Amino acid sequence: MRAMVITTGEEILKGEVVDTHASWISEKLCEVGVEVVGHLSVGDNLASLKEAFLRVAGRCEVAVVTGGLGPTEDDLTARAVAESAGVALVEDPAATASVAAYFEGRHLAVPASNLKQARLPKGSSCIPNPVGTAPAFSLELAGTRFWFLPGVPREMRYLMTESVLPAMVALQPNGARLVKTAITTFGLPESLVGERLSGLESIFQGIHVGYRASLPVIEVKIWAFDREGGSLEKIQQAASAEALKRLGEYVVSGHGLSMAEAVAERLCETNKTVAVAESCTGGLIGSLLTDVSGSSDWFLLSAVTYANSAKENVLGVSGETLAAHGAVSAETVKEMAEGVKRTSGADIGIATSGIAGPTGGTDEKPVGTVWIGIATDAGTEALHFVSPFKERHQNKRIFAFKALDLLRRAI
Amino acid sequence: MRAMVITTGEEILKGEVVDTHASWISEKLCEVGVEVVGHLSVGDNLASLKEAFLRVAGRCEVAVVTGGLGPTEDDLTARAVAESAGVALVEDPAATASVAAYFEGRHLAVPASNLKQARLPKGSSCIPNPVGTAPAFSLELAGTRFWFLPGVPREMRYLMTESVLPAMVALQPNGARLVKTAITTFGLPESLVGERLSGLESIFQGIHVGYRASLPVIEVKIWAFDREGGSLEKIQQAASAEALKRLGEYVVSGHGLSMAEAVAERLCETNKTVAVAESCTGGLIGSLLTDVSGSSDWFLLSAVTYANSAKENVLGVSGETLAAHGAVSAETVKEMAEGVKRTSGADIGIATSGIAGPTGGTDEKPVGTVWIGIATDAGTEALHFVSPFKERHQNKRIFAFKALDLLRRAI
Repeated sequence: MRAMVITTGEEILKGEVVDTHASWISEKLCEVGVEVVGHLSVGDNLASLKEAFLRVAGRCEVAVVTGGLGPTEDDLTARAVAESAGVALVEDPAATASVAAYFEGRHLAVPASNLKQARLPKGSSCIPNPVGTAPAFSLELAGTRFWFLPGVPREMRYLMTESVLPAMVALQPNGARLVKTAITTFGLPESLVGERLSGLESIFQGIHVGYRASLPVIEVKIWAFDREGGSLEKIQQAASAEALKRLGEYVVSGHGLSMAEAVAERLCETNKTVAVAESCTGGLIGSLLTDVSGSSDWFLLSAVTYANSAKENVLGVSGETLAAHGAVSAETVKEMAEGVKRTSGADIGIATSGIAGPTGGTDEKPVGTVWIGIATDAGTEALHFVSPFKERHQNKRIFAFKALDLLRRAI
Repeated sequence: MRAMVITTGEEILKGEVVDTHASWISEKLCEVGVEVVGHLSVGDNLASLKEAFLRVAGRCEVAVVTGGLGPTEDDLTARAVAESAGVALVEDPAATASVAAYFEGRHLAVPASNLKQARLPKGSSCIPNPVGTAPAFSLELAGTRFWFLPGVPREMRYLMTESVLPAMVALQPNGARLVKTAITTFGLPESLVGERLSGLESIFQGIHVGYRASLPVIEVKIWAFDREGGSLEKIQQAASAEALKRLGEYVVSGHGLSMAEAVAERLCETNKTVAVAESCTGGLIGSLLTDVSGSSDWFLLSAVTYANSAKENVLGVSGETLAAHGAVSAETVKEMAEGVKRTSGADIGIATSGIAGPTGGTDEKPVGTVWIGIATDAGTEALHFVSPFKERHQNKRIFAFKALDLLRRAI
């Protein structure tokens, strides 16, 4: 079954917002075996909307449209649909009930402007909206089944999940089911990840391999549309096992966890705690780790010691070490890691010191240089790494991921 | 002049990537006075590409297409253009020179696969690409001038800026020029920002007001297409001054700075230093501040003291205070702020302690509760705030921005 996704709004065409609706809807459609053949974004004026609907109608089996169902005069989707279909806008009892129920649930009278939202193109099926004021609706145009959803993200997602996707599944009772493995890798560029997995699609017929760079992490998806219930799923599982073997130590997670979530999983399994001393990463390691819910169980302290005086006072790094080797050195990060482990009482201390840029580099220590120290009960080590980037955000991020990866491997 | 933006690639249609190219290109086109009337995304197979080009040709004056110019067999844009135009693919001397120059600059031989990239549809104009292997090109199809650019973000942006936008400006010598003011606000929901600015477009005829929620910040853009050089620019400036007056204390920056950049600007102007003690924000405040280049001049320390023991050891918060009032209290954040100011020697200490969620809330201190402490030479204060959100990332972010806003107002 082929689908088009249509999003509406001047703010998309002006580049003021990135069109995340189209990607979210597409991912969900793909998961129930619907093939998305195109996205279209148009302005929310009557002519553009009608042109878009008529252009898509008859060209695919289904279409999902978002936006323009609000209560104001410039919300024109329902009118554009009615004119495209050559029917009138009529008050829909189910839509009126949906609007009324929304306001009654909040002990409010229904504003007159919201009753406009209950006028739908004649012949359409209302999809009641319990999480917002705009009822959604569905209508067939020239053989294409359209769903019209509000643009408010929470409402759109709710109605997609609760109504549209089940309806799509019902439309193709013998349809395909997506089976998918998400592998998170770190440490290999995308081209080398691709080389390691080359030929996989020929060996395991019917599976697909997709790559997505969320730098500095490369995500690999191994997926297939399983039609007959079983055979392709087994092939997909075998392909995933082979991919994990080939990617080896670069696999952060074989089931889609982020780097921080993978570290958290290992810390929980081994019942260990961690503390971080950050310089160049500026708190990013702490922020990534505390994004994981429940991190207070194993995350004790991150000391972001930008100033040398803070390295001395908070972490007990010696002034002699700083004077002799500088802040960006093996000696300093080892003392930082040991200091934060000691101060916090954590099982593992990890520390970063480097030059994120764009300024501050020297011939000896260019922008992109970082030292990472790790202190455990077994001893203290330091790792040296030079990133190819000159840009501050990129370097902070890659330094933080290098440190988390070192931590992951040490647990 | 009307434009369409076409992006290509299966990863967009599967929802694996968000289409940021379309929004970036649209914003740039809008800045030189080109009206974008639609975005279209299609798969990178021959049939879909040809259908997209023929669908757009003749419907607008200009079109920008990205992707499918690479060296491999599945990069089909040039072939699809040639077939759409009914012309042959021919080796283009300028394109061959572009590819050769790229590899020669890196002291490498030109791989055979890259020579394919020098074969362009007959009649097209090559746009040499000094930052990548894929030459771009331009061709007229049914009255529409198309530009075909590589999908690699860095190359696409370089060629848009250096070649496509100047060409667009040249196509409309008496065209409009965008004048724009970007205002960053914090503390008012989008609806109230809109209410404060209501009527602005009627008072200052010809200007437009746009809103963009980068939660928790609301950005306001006041813009106009100035055609005659001067008159509309003055109106736009007057409208911007009026908007700044109406938004008052909620204006973080009147010239597009982020919250952290606005704080940095104030710290530099007043020659002050800052240190942060973070609990629930987990390092996010430090990370936001150190995203600003040059932050080592004024950012001394962020201590992310998740564990109570770390609050005592690192910041000198008293065990009695923690026992009597709990970690999430006015008393604790005041001692944290004073402690981090004292330990670091900074002019200002700022501290957070709260419950980001989704777990950890109580009836007395529900998820979303935060206390923020600020210590200066003039004394110490604490601010209480309850966010309406239950989600961890949202709360971390809003807590961090509340703290930065308090800091901004205190400098």
